[in-house]
Amino acid sequence: MTNISILTIGDELLIGQVIDTNSAWMAQELNRAGFWVNRRLAVGDRREAILSALDGESKVSKIILITGGLGPTSDDITKPLLCEYFDTGLVVDPQALENVKNIFEKILKRPLTETNLRQAEVPASCKVIQNRRGTAPGMVFEKEGKIFISMPGVPHEMKGMMTEAVIPLLIKRFKPEHIAHRTLLTAGIGESTLADHIGSFERSLPPHVSLAYLPNYGMVRLRLTARSQQGEANNEEIDRLFADLKSRVGEWLVTDEDIPIEEALGRLLKERKKTVGTAESCSGGLVARQITSVPGSSVYFKGSVIAYSNQIKKSLLGVDPAILDEHGAVSEETVRAMVKGAIRLLDTDFAVATSGIMGPDGGSEKKPVGTVWIAAGDKDRIITQKHWFRFDRQRNTELTAANVLNLLRRFILSQSGEAGGNDLKN
Amino acid sequence: MTNISILTIGDELLIGQVIDTNSAWMAQELNRAGFWVNRRLAVGDRREAILSALDGESKVSKIILITGGLGPTSDDITKPLLCEYFDTGLVVDPQALENVKNIFEKILKRPLTETNLRQAEVPASCKVIQNRRGTAPGMVFEKEGKIFISMPGVPHEMKGMMTEAVIPLLIKRFKPEHIAHRTLLTAGIGESTLADHIGSFERSLPPHVSLAYLPNYGMVRLRLTARSQQGEANNEEIDRLFADLKSRVGEWLVTDEDIPIEEALGRLLKERKKTVGTAESCSGGLVARQITSVPGSSVYFKGSVIAYSNQIKKSLLGVDPAILDEHGAVSEETVRAMVKGAIRLLDTDFAVATSGIMGPDGGSEKKPVGTVWIAAGDKDRIITQKHWFRFDRQRNTELTAANVLNLLRRFILSQSGEAGGNDLKN
Repeated sequence: MTNISILTIGDELLIGQVIDTNSAWMAQELNRAGFWVNRRLAVGDRREAILSALDGESKVSKIILITGGLGPTSDDITKPLLCEYFDTGLVVDPQALENVKNIFEKILKRPLTETNLRQAEVPASCKVIQNRRGTAPGMVFEKEGKIFISMPGVPHEMKGMMTEAVIPLLIKRFKPEHIAHRTLLTAGIGESTLADHIGSFERSLPPHVSLAYLPNYGMVRLRLTARSQQGEANNEEIDRLFADLKSRVGEWLVTDEDIPIEEALGRLLKERKKTVGTAESCSGGLVARQITSVPGSSVYFKGSVIAYSNQIKKSLLGVDPAILDEHGAVSEETVRAMVKGAIRLLDTDFAVATSGIMGPDGGSEKKPVGTVWIAAGDKDRIITQKHWFRFDRQRNTELTAANVLNLLRRFILSQSGEAGGNDLKN
Repeated sequence: MTNISILTIGDELLIGQVIDTNSAWMAQELNRAGFWVNRRLAVGDRREAILSALDGESKVSKIILITGGLGPTSDDITKPLLCEYFDTGLVVDPQALENVKNIFEKILKRPLTETNLRQAEVPASCKVIQNRRGTAPGMVFEKEGKIFISMPGVPHEMKGMMTEAVIPLLIKRFKPEHIAHRTLLTAGIGESTLADHIGSFERSLPPHVSLAYLPNYGMVRLRLTARSQQGEANNEEIDRLFADLKSRVGEWLVTDEDIPIEEALGRLLKERKKTVGTAESCSGGLVARQITSVPGSSVYFKGSVIAYSNQIKKSLLGVDPAILDEHGAVSEETVRAMVKGAIRLLDTDFAVATSGIMGPDGGSEKKPVGTVWIAAGDKDRIITQKHWFRFDRQRNTELTAANVLNLLRRFILSQSGEAGGNDLKN
């Protein structure tokens, strides 16, 4: 098994100003290619920290992938340190220079400064990976049998380099182990209850197959992982085990692929040739945003009304003022009326609605912060759910969106009497 | 300076299934309290990896904060390993047991299983931190002068524990160094051009003050950091340097606080007692979502129309069919008409509009993927911008939202002739 360490350089990660999404993406791609990411380490823009990280990681991993710290500004100290660590000096790479000039003259149409020109400098002993999306080149080093590859931290530049150069290079050089994953998504059951329910399955797994529980937004993802050196036999075995797992999960199953709920719903809508719209109060557009994050969603998503104010609930969605007066905006009656209004106004087959109190303020004794009503339906029938989310504003909103997407999915399944659509409240 | 290592445990981080947002939050809070996060390390649910991480981090940091790996399911192996590492055995903590029982009986209203009960077990030698938001308790260990604190990985449980117990404990125990940050956000200028522009300022900084460039969504955040043992003197000095930096940044300044663009815009709207709505095509609700992510935004945000289909652009926003036929949905004329329609329909002072091709498909030679028109204005005047974003669907959408929020901000400033609102195209 070829171990990889991912080393991310930058003070911004250590003071929490930036969330590290690069490492997750890299790990995913490396894993798919059959490599095992052993450690992910972030250190600051500091000489000793970087040198000791390079040393430490090369002791536990064969490959060290480095991102960040290659920008043109003086808080970026990685390049000189790489020279020090690999005992070499900076030289100008002619192709990288050509690239920097080209970007400034033809694309940015800005004069080239000395700071920019330094982007074309590389340590003399490295093999250069050209950057087709930016100015900082990638660099490949070798030392005592270990491979070090340094890439820029800008996500799309790093991703391009990984896909086009780094992963092909690693596959050619190391014959990666075959790692197979199968993932499914469940909803409506907690992690520990699920664990008790499928305990006997888990205990019966062979030692090279493992099961992981990944809870998120009130849903639990289950991931089976098998390792081996024979690609084919491995796939057959994990497929068989996965089929078994699926049947045990039963009607809690949302999707048997590693896709988010919005994609599972999108496939269902596409398959049934139906359209959807949203009427959102407390979710403030996040439900629409989730639906449209799926490429090709314009086939089934037509549009939304974000009715944050009561005025718009009345004027656009036609919610009866008497409903708002009597039951309030956060009520079953209001979300029902919002679904009806959205179907009429947006001319869709289905619609979903949300109304709630996201916090931190706005709660009352009867309707505390986190109280949310959601609804989904068509012109003939509407189902609703009440939730009480006890988290922060951000997470309450995300939970609202995930739950209303799943409510619509179950509504659609219930129309054809399929599993997953049972026990719905009308 | 008291160094801290953050150690995150879980295979899900190493295969990239989950993005680590916990570490960023922890780093931010620790930093604010005057601690320096030295390293952030993630390792898998594997005995050797965890033991060697505990060993390695205790060599470079005085405090090791551990999250994850405490769930009830069998892929969570942290607790037995902590027993091994600290040479102790598991015992049931009576208070933690009471907590688990309480959660199942009173909140979840589900029968308690053996798996759940194991949550109340802790290594005998640790000091227990009770979990007020979930079942897994926190644990404090001491070994050879180093402090190890283990917390659950569920974000809101970890956050509660950090705020209420861990940070107070660390402050009491260590007298943290004073670290002061000042951050500002710029727009409309690239990282390297900005670096050249403020180069002489940067070179004149005293050695204990550093400047970092944090580019994101086409905007660059600048962060000044000063370290010292005297709290007060330090603040005065950094305030003076920050004022100097601000004046040099001039009209590229968006906000002189560490807040996102949607919050800067929100303050401006609140201050001027104005309301806003959105008419979104390609951004699919993200602009509304960003605006409503700010607590209290209901004061200035009334609602939106997401007009993903042309039909809704016409029927709801009143975009003239002739405009769509002649110029297409992705055009200056269309976004202008969308702003007008939104102001009329939503009855707001201002509105913004977006229309573009987010990819991966749908581009043409004349309008390639990433072509986006945005607009902002009031009933009398509308300004527009054309962009060509060359990233993936997700990033193109985020860039669209960030840019249209900034366009509206500049529009509002231009009304009162303030800096930042110049050179706007009418």
